[in-house]
Amino acid sequence: MPVLSGRGSFETALRAAAEAVEAELAHCLPEGSGRIGRVFDAMRYAALGGGKRLRAFLAIETGRLFGADPAMALRAAAAVEMVHAYSLVHDDLPAMDDAAMRRGRPSCHAAFDEATAILAGDALLTLAFQVLAAPEPIVDPALRTALVLGLARAAGAEGMVGGQMIDLSAEGADLSLEELTDLQARKTGALIRFACEAGAMLGHAGRAEARAVAAFAEALGRAFQVADDLLDATGDAARTGKDAGLDSDREKVTFVTRLGVDGARREAQRLADRAIAALEPFGARADLLRDTARFAIARDH
Amino acid sequence: MPVLSGRGSFETALRAAAEAVEAELAHCLPEGSGRIGRVFDAMRYAALGGGKRLRAFLAIETGRLFGADPAMALRAAAAVEMVHAYSLVHDDLPAMDDAAMRRGRPSCHAAFDEATAILAGDALLTLAFQVLAAPEPIVDPALRTALVLGLARAAGAEGMVGGQMIDLSAEGADLSLEELTDLQARKTGALIRFACEAGAMLGHAGRAEARAVAAFAEALGRAFQVADDLLDATGDAARTGKDAGLDSDREKVTFVTRLGVDGARREAQRLADRAIAALEPFGARADLLRDTARFAIARDH
Repeated sequence: MPVLSGRGSFETALRAAAEAVEAELAHCLPEGSGRIGRVFDAMRYAALGGGKRLRAFLAIETGRLFGADPAMALRAAAAVEMVHAYSLVHDDLPAMDDAAMRRGRPSCHAAFDEATAILAGDALLTLAFQVLAAPEPIVDPALRTALVLGLARAAGAEGMVGGQMIDLSAEGADLSLEELTDLQARKTGALIRFACEAGAMLGHAGRAEARAVAAFAEALGRAFQVADDLLDATGDAARTGKDAGLDSDREKVTFVTRLGVDGARREAQRLADRAIAALEPFGARADLLRDTARFAIARDH
Repeated sequence: MPVLSGRGSFETALRAAAEAVEAELAHCLPEGSGRIGRVFDAMRYAALGGGKRLRAFLAIETGRLFGADPAMALRAAAAVEMVHAYSLVHDDLPAMDDAAMRRGRPSCHAAFDEATAILAGDALLTLAFQVLAAPEPIVDPALRTALVLGLARAAGAEGMVGGQMIDLSAEGADLSLEELTDLQARKTGALIRFACEAGAMLGHAGRAEARAVAAFAEALGRAFQVADDLLDATGDAARTGKDAGLDSDREKVTFVTRLGVDGARREAQRLADRAIAALEPFGARADLLRDTARFAIARDH
């Protein structure tokens, strides 16, 4: 396993970002009462209290790299986490991946019911655009509209939804490495990339800087997915919070079935190295982002 | 039945708006190919070729009333129709209203499958925000972001999704007239109101004008829903394209069960009159919008 440079400070920063975005999400997600309250309860259940908040961390850290207003970056981070949470709620539905557990507790439809989970996902997706478009804290309407556009592209039929569509329709099919890479670039890569782009946008990054961040984000997203497949193939349920081996049970093609365990480990390392190399223009200021790439392939959950 | 003033010109205008928004939707919705193409196919199936396009007509006509750029109003109309289409796709799902037919043909999940319908709905909702946030044809970013915000509020947990949540959780419950009115204001009223507000926003309507349009839209939305309940109770499936009596089969409270057929007819007329009265400041320029209120309660499908 590679060693994190300054692991302590990275983990502290990751935890601090998670706490900050948790508070921002709690602020953006009203508590429900009455009959309508059920959908707010389900939204809070799905969006609060879970996950590493890696996407939020990326938005916050790239924002910091470019001197973005922290409150604005935090808002973008919350919007990204809402979209991530909605995608998990819908992916877990019986008609999709049919997962009863998520992050070590019942998935949203298991805790509530299927109809409520569908609606909570819909409402989380909608709220993500609402909180980005709101006049506070992101004052400049040009920035708000650019963020809405970027998030919609990352989340929609060309991005995350399209990736899930390919994934579902590929079940049992013998995807090539290129097809698998395209699938994952959409399904998980697009939102990770948008998180980084949002921070760069809010910090008014120049064109070359934005390109460097995009290259970092793309390699990071791929490294993360290869590592995820490794965890699914070799991890245990107690740590990941989901059933290990679920992918192979369904005869799904993953980076591990395509490359083997050793090949996938080498590929993850190669991608993490590439992500780190992309940050070269930023010097030591980007050390926490470099640690993210190391973390992506070293994590055990 | 009340008689439409200038019925011919209203129906011509309604048809012209439907054709224009159909073309705009076809332009915004790419055709699919490959594995990812399935979600594009389902989006087109759900959004194209159906419905009266009343919401689109309202966005276009209120835009015209205030001299908005027609291309901009048409874009807003398309975004509203995407959200309407997504809501029908998700409402029809087995876990929700479980409707196999919609507009006289198989509903989206019946024509494709449940997972594809969930994804197509998600992607239509996302695309609605994307096409509003795009730099063309609505050039001013402040307008774009105001439209995104308004659409998100109308569609989200406080609006349309919240209305559907109340509707589902109220099944079998003895809703009061006030509760039913609140439910419908969210479930169908909010999007109708946003369609009208979008036209007013794009035409830079003044505050008093915008208030008049909002009052029109609110009364119109209510009139439309009361008339819908009348159609469901008394209409036939061949005309409405759905099973008549579906609501009463499920012991759902509607305006007809609350007010009786005659009472509901009087209420629809009262609301249409109120909608028409709200347009008083605009004189003859608002005649087509007045006809919309007459149409809402006189239609047979």
